[in-house]
Amino acid sequence: MALEPPWKAIAARKQAERLSRIPKSWLLSSLPPSSTLDVRSIPRSSGILTPLELGITENNDATSLSAAIRARKYTAVQVTTAFCKRAVIAQQVCNCLTEILFSGALERARYLDSYYEKTGKTVGPLHGVPISLKDTFKIKGYDSSIGIASLAFKPATENSLLVDILLEAGAVLYCKTNVPQTLMALDSDNNVFGRVLNPRNRKVTAGGSSGGEGALVAMRGSVLGVGTDVGGSIRIPAMCNGLYGIKPGSMRVPYVGQENGTREGASKIGLMASAGPIAGSMRDCELLLRTVSNARPWERDPSLAYGLWEDQGGIERKPLLGVIRTDGLITPLPPVAKVLDETVQKLRKSGVEVIEIDAPEFKKCQSLANSFFGIDGANHVFDLLEATKEPLTGWLSTRLRRKTPMGLDKLVEIHAKKVQLETEMLKLWKDHKTGRTIDAFICPVAPHPVPPIDRWNGVSYTSSFVLLDYPAGTLPIRDFKEEDLRGELDNSKPLGSWDKINRELWDAKTIDRNVYLGTKLSVQVVAPKMQERRLVQAMSLIDEVLQNDRSRQAKL
Amino acid sequence: MALEPPWKAIAARKQAERLSRIPKSWLLSSLPPSSTLDVRSIPRSSGILTPLELGITENNDATSLSAAIRARKYTAVQVTTAFCKRAVIAQQVCNCLTEILFSGALERARYLDSYYEKTGKTVGPLHGVPISLKDTFKIKGYDSSIGIASLAFKPATENSLLVDILLEAGAVLYCKTNVPQTLMALDSDNNVFGRVLNPRNRKVTAGGSSGGEGALVAMRGSVLGVGTDVGGSIRIPAMCNGLYGIKPGSMRVPYVGQENGTREGASKIGLMASAGPIAGSMRDCELLLRTVSNARPWERDPSLAYGLWEDQGGIERKPLLGVIRTDGLITPLPPVAKVLDETVQKLRKSGVEVIEIDAPEFKKCQSLANSFFGIDGANHVFDLLEATKEPLTGWLSTRLRRKTPMGLDKLVEIHAKKVQLETEMLKLWKDHKTGRTIDAFICPVAPHPVPPIDRWNGVSYTSSFVLLDYPAGTLPIRDFKEEDLRGELDNSKPLGSWDKINRELWDAKTIDRNVYLGTKLSVQVVAPKMQERRLVQAMSLIDEVLQNDRSRQAKL
Repeated sequence: MALEPPWKAIAARKQAERLSRIPKSWLLSSLPPSSTLDVRSIPRSSGILTPLELGITENNDATSLSAAIRARKYTAVQVTTAFCKRAVIAQQVCNCLTEILFSGALERARYLDSYYEKTGKTVGPLHGVPISLKDTFKIKGYDSSIGIASLAFKPATENSLLVDILLEAGAVLYCKTNVPQTLMALDSDNNVFGRVLNPRNRKVTAGGSSGGEGALVAMRGSVLGVGTDVGGSIRIPAMCNGLYGIKPGSMRVPYVGQENGTREGASKIGLMASAGPIAGSMRDCELLLRTVSNARPWERDPSLAYGLWEDQGGIERKPLLGVIRTDGLITPLPPVAKVLDETVQKLRKSGVEVIEIDAPEFKKCQSLANSFFGIDGANHVFDLLEATKEPLTGWLSTRLRRKTPMGLDKLVEIHAKKVQLETEMLKLWKDHKTGRTIDAFICPVAPHPVPPIDRWNGVSYTSSFVLLDYPAGTLPIRDFKEEDLRGELDNSKPLGSWDKINRELWDAKTIDRNVYLGTKLSVQVVAPKMQERRLVQAMSLIDEVLQNDRSRQAKL
Repeated sequence: MALEPPWKAIAARKQAERLSRIPKSWLLSSLPPSSTLDVRSIPRSSGILTPLELGITENNDATSLSAAIRARKYTAVQVTTAFCKRAVIAQQVCNCLTEILFSGALERARYLDSYYEKTGKTVGPLHGVPISLKDTFKIKGYDSSIGIASLAFKPATENSLLVDILLEAGAVLYCKTNVPQTLMALDSDNNVFGRVLNPRNRKVTAGGSSGGEGALVAMRGSVLGVGTDVGGSIRIPAMCNGLYGIKPGSMRVPYVGQENGTREGASKIGLMASAGPIAGSMRDCELLLRTVSNARPWERDPSLAYGLWEDQGGIERKPLLGVIRTDGLITPLPPVAKVLDETVQKLRKSGVEVIEIDAPEFKKCQSLANSFFGIDGANHVFDLLEATKEPLTGWLSTRLRRKTPMGLDKLVEIHAKKVQLETEMLKLWKDHKTGRTIDAFICPVAPHPVPPIDRWNGVSYTSSFVLLDYPAGTLPIRDFKEEDLRGELDNSKPLGSWDKINRELWDAKTIDRNVYLGTKLSVQVVAPKMQERRLVQAMSLIDEVLQNDRSRQAKL
């Protein structure tokens, strides 16, 4: 009889541990059938949340919650309880959680309430606000297994720096969220915790690698989540789940002290990942970024740049936006091109100047970014997997293999290419007719709408801005409607293999387009390097023009 | 008959070219004998400069020159002529120049004068101010041979970005200055141009690698020079020549587009060099840094950080300085310890708080920095030398050899160590008793006074702040006097080999201490990463307290 590979027992124990941390009374009496695609209303119908708890979770963003706690409308315990319950319902229908920290979270909420009662002061700008974190963040006493069996049952002995900063600002940490195996996939699926589902439509992808975060926030099981992004891992799940998501540059929000399946020091010769918010409102994204920057994180993380939130740029005069309609590598499918154009037209109609940017060098970014992702040859992560005989998940098994690490000559060569490309791309930011600097540009998040599970195609529109270290965010625009099903591909030759596969996501022979109905169409907004505040201002401006933010808050 | 190695003829042609660019009437009728150690008065006694030209070069810094040109007291042509003449005299007694650009410089000065006359406007804050540049900077049509024969007679086809920015600000570029072979030595000696001598005392070193810059400014053949520093190459020649010199962090002043004997992209996996000012006054250092930052260089060089001069920190409240008396690796010799302590005492007496900083991790910096310097195994530079059969110069021949480039594992390991050390060193910036942040700390530039030629020992006090990317500057304090000859080494065991060699620079058996008489004693000032303006404010504060700046300007 063949022995079972060690990872299986570890995964079973890990899932049992997760289940054991959920109070029995918060379990759904029955799970919805898999034919129920939109599960967002289940918390409301479950009977598990009180009317107060439904109000807390459905009628607030983090900004209003923080104000309500300050105004003594809610206690931190009430707010925390509401989100713990709702997160657990999200878990049951979307499989979005990894670590559950409810008992510690409620204890902390009680402390915050009593502190506020005694002193009349809040601990900080996030006093009592529950914040969910991607599994990569380390919280003392809990695992950061990131869905790899050999990393399970190795609880962290120290907090990641961002965890400390959030706690100092008054946040309540109550759960961590699910990710793809290796973090190098765009669907959040792994052997330890299984696959995250999209609450809006369980047939389409929830995205990755911060997919658990995306699904949880979309379920309103979290009001403000923190993900990480080294190829699109904040912006992609934000798009998939119809949310706002910002990848700051690598020098603003502490990324240090996380478990990400690479060796210490590796990112310093490769690309630097960023941590950033996934949320239901622009002002919540700003709340997180402002709070972190004003905590002077550069005094504790040497990779960060000096500069308070107010020092991170801003729109200086009349706004000047740009639009990049294609990366020259994968032509956006009709609905993606359409929503981008609609956004441009609405902006122009409202008086915001938007100029067309020609970006001939953009197409060079993806392959160079891929060279950077391949420096280590995935050796470290294969070592981790093989330690428990853990196989790759389905999607990865055909795409990832162990390779010889890059040699020094080649490494120097790709860095030289990067500097050259960065220099060429800097020219995008100038309006060559007038010499003005462009405040931000908009472009697609992806060349396709939110696709079915395991069919995300290409990350060129997101990974390029990791290569260039530009702050970039996802801005949800509107739902995909019947009329968006129209629009055909032209008969031109595909630009390359990525473009060819992309067309299969629209060609009636290879996809039933109806799967897109009801998913959210989004655009990406990108600002110059190290100007995170300018990005937020540009995104907020676009959001206001489209009257999205207000209506969304009112509806939810 | 053995063929002469190719580098010899190239060096001879290069020296002949240099000589041919000097007007005959500016040649000294006779050179001072080598027994004349202090050659600083030769421009005055030479008869080559008119009284006006002596006044221009001796009674001004760059700030006052710029004001005088604006006030129409001097023309740009007068100022340029004066500095061209004086630079050529400096060249004849100190061998500090490489490329001579006089004809282009005078043409430009005429253009600037006529522009000002016609428009009533200056081109920029440096209108008409002559600036000298280290040979590493590229100026279209001129070599950047950096003293390596195989790089000679390959004129640049483009300017380095900083060159463009200085020209846009109105500067006049009139010469480039001498460096050590490979840039990896602390004496500026090479086979193509020969050795730079120290104008204050031709028996002691002029320092390196911006040694030509240091000697030229000390001769007042330049009022403001730009050097580069990846181990101490601005701060060391500033110290040797009794000048102010600032190494900004790597993200402030464009370094891009220089010839430094390494491959494109190599610095991105190693340590980043900085460009910065060497000058006779603090306000001139600030003038350069402010002008460059306010030209928004990050819009053209992707390695730079967003941030105008005003965004680069500053002393926020009552100043709080620190002092680090030793790096724990090489104990400063008595006069170095003494001048550091004098500085602390004077600061305290004037009411500036200075706290003692214990920096146990400081000693780890030097060997880690050395690991970074060794990544390439010097292969590129040896390829350059061997192309013309050029040998290493004397000092380097016993210290540099071709090695196998570092492997990827080791490279990742040293980057991880760097992050760890950077994190530990961040703790230095907090006064642990009160939680206040230290504005800047002072420490030695070197563990010894300005030593005889080829006897500089160790760069731990300077290279550490390249490793950490802290802005740091040299502040001249006072002349070495008779009474400084006193003070003996204790009988303790040397801390290591560097410390042992350092003692030989004080032990009467191994040195005649009288060589130090009349050299300048300096201190180093260091500020937190990316806070160049805070550094300048701290240096200016110390300079004012010591009443150095004013008296120096008056005397010169």
